[in-house]
Amino acid sequence: MTVFQPQNSNFEHVVRDSFSRQPFMELIGARLDVLKPGVCEIVVDRQRGLTQQHGFFHGGLVSSLADSAAGYAAFSLYPENSTVLTVDFKVNFLNPSEGERLRARSEVIRAGKKIFHLKGDVFAEKEGGVVHCLTGMFTMMCMLGKSDAPNLGRETVGSA
Amino acid sequence: MTVFQPQNSNFEHVVRDSFSRQPFMELIGARLDVLKPGVCEIVVDRQRGLTQQHGFFHGGLVSSLADSAAGYAAFSLYPENSTVLTVDFKVNFLNPSEGERLRARSEVIRAGKKIFHLKGDVFAEKEGGVVHCLTGMFTMMCMLGKSDAPNLGRETVGSA
Amino acid sequence: MTVFQPQNSNFEHVVRDSFSRQPFMELIGARLDVLKPGVCEIVVDRQRGLTQQHGFFHGGLVSSLADSAAGYAAFSLYPENSTVLTVDFKVNFLNPSEGERLRARSEVIRAGKKIFHLKGDVFAEKEGGVVHCLTGMFTMMCMLGKSDAPNLGRETVGSA
Amino acid sequence: MTVFQPQNSNFEHVVRDSFSRQPFMELIGARLDVLKPGVCEIVVDRQRGLTQQHGFFHGGLVSSLADSAAGYAAFSLYPENSTVLTVDFKVNFLNPSEGERLRARSEVIRAGKKIFHLKGDVFAEKEGGVVHCLTGMFTMMCMLGKSDAPNLGRETVGSA
Repeated sequence: MTVFQPQNSNFEHVVRDSFSRQPFMELIGARLDVLKPGVCEIVVDRQRGLTQQHGFFHGGLVSSLADSAAGYAAFSLYPENSTVLTVDFKVNFLNPSEGERLRARSEVIRAGKKIFHLKGDVFAEKEGGVVHCLTGMFTMMCMLGKSDAPNLGRETVGSA
Repeated sequence: MTVFQPQNSNFEHVVRDSFSRQPFMELIGARLDVLKPGVCEIVVDRQRGLTQQHGFFHGGLVSSLADSAAGYAAFSLYPENSTVLTVDFKVNFLNPSEGERLRARSEVIRAGKKIFHLKGDVFAEKEGGVVHCLTGMFTMMCMLGKSDAPNLGRETVGSA
Repeated sequence: MTVFQPQNSNFEHVVRDSFSRQPFMELIGARLDVLKPGVCEIVVDRQRGLTQQHGFFHGGLVSSLADSAAGYAAFSLYPENSTVLTVDFKVNFLNPSEGERLRARSEVIRAGKKIFHLKGDVFAEKEGGVVHCLTGMFTMMCMLGKSDAPNLGRETVGSA
Repeated sequence: MTVFQPQNSNFEHVVRDSFSRQPFMELIGARLDVLKPGVCEIVVDRQRGLTQQHGFFHGGLVSSLADSAAGYAAFSLYPENSTVLTVDFKVNFLNPSEGERLRARSEVIRAGKKIFHLKGDVFAEKEGGVVHCLTGMFTMMCMLGKSDAPNLGRETVGSA
């Protein structure tokens, strides 16, 4: 695994602050756990509202968690005064997401000037083991000169 | 667009019943709107809990909606006594998801015995127009002999 | 389908010239057929060297053709003094590529400043009909200020 | 990395024989190098016919090599009397494919009954180092009861 050097020494504060301003992460009860330059892990505990008809974590929820982990893994390497946008992702579902907790982990594979490639995986943790639920690839864009805060820098992927 | 013939004449009841048993769809306030053989549209109204830090619908939420629409578009063509699994999906984010309502629409491109290929798109509806937010491709598997109901047919992608 | 306005009135010459400088397209015998702003079709006739073990066109060849059609559909909308790079693509194989000729068709879905999203499809043409072999999504980047010609503008995705 | 047990003790012969019957691999001069249960590496030396307009290996060629490596990595784990089909793949291009030789390496992430998930990477080898050109994810299907040889078992993804 490549070791990345953050461009913003304050990256941990910036990323955690951004995460805390995502109402959707609050709705699903997600927590930003591990954060290192180019690496992010997000966890969520099982609750009924996150499941599908078989009682597993819903696939959409699982991929949402992976997408967020990828976005913040990329964002950790961005310079000041920038924000992050998902360009695209692909996810393969490997096993049912059955467990007490989900953990999404993503890390940067390649950091460009604007385009960041990441891999991401989601694991369901339960008594007696861990199940690999999802593996995916994510492309993120660094939007320079756009604030990550609301109402200040409204430009988005539409201007990419 | 191909016209598909449902294998289960009761498909509308089967699909709507399955949708109503997804707590995650309830959590996000999603409604199954259009349902025809091989086609499904799901909508959700804007509420703060579905947004990200810029006030747009969260990307994970947007792709979740598309995944659900694809799953149920495929499921509408399945025979009795089966259930649906997402094998993988791929999504490109085209424009920010800003609007009063999201509409995910998916339709079957190819119906195999087990493997179904679908396309899916998400649109943000607001006063003055519609924005194309996401386009994607979805691969679904038909699990024959597995109940769609919980606790009765626990076999899943793990046995695919 | 969106109608796009080319930025370079000379786009047809620029694209066809670039295509003619791709030795790999020559090796496989591909021809640039239709070219309109944001749309490109490339065809190749069946020959043994393009097949796999069952006698169908090789999947890699099929996706190569789609990737090239997407690259040139995007390039047709670029300004002067630029070149095109594939950021990523995603392809679903729908049916075996059996026929006398393959036709890849791609069109731009969204033209950004740098990032272009395209869809692409490949069809096998044979007596008695056409088979839809592949459907895919392609992300292309516009590299401004980089020549499309060799040895003059060596910067590539590595600098994106 | 998971260690996989082949179902067919004769897998090496079966895979190498199949590879040798792919005219497209012959056209591009590809060689099956490493082969272990669930792992495959394919290499190709640089020649003009494999390049694009900047003199790098053509992106379509690079992804073709990865797709083939993934197909044969999956096939190495299949039972007797079966063949392999690509359901879909996604590839991200990380760096220009500049070098004397390309090496595609793929390994199985999850082996199901029918659906196999793989990752794959392509590296350009040149004096002074190795460049990571492509990373991708591949979904392969095991077609039981279908011969891998031509004209004997014509059923393909069309019957999946």
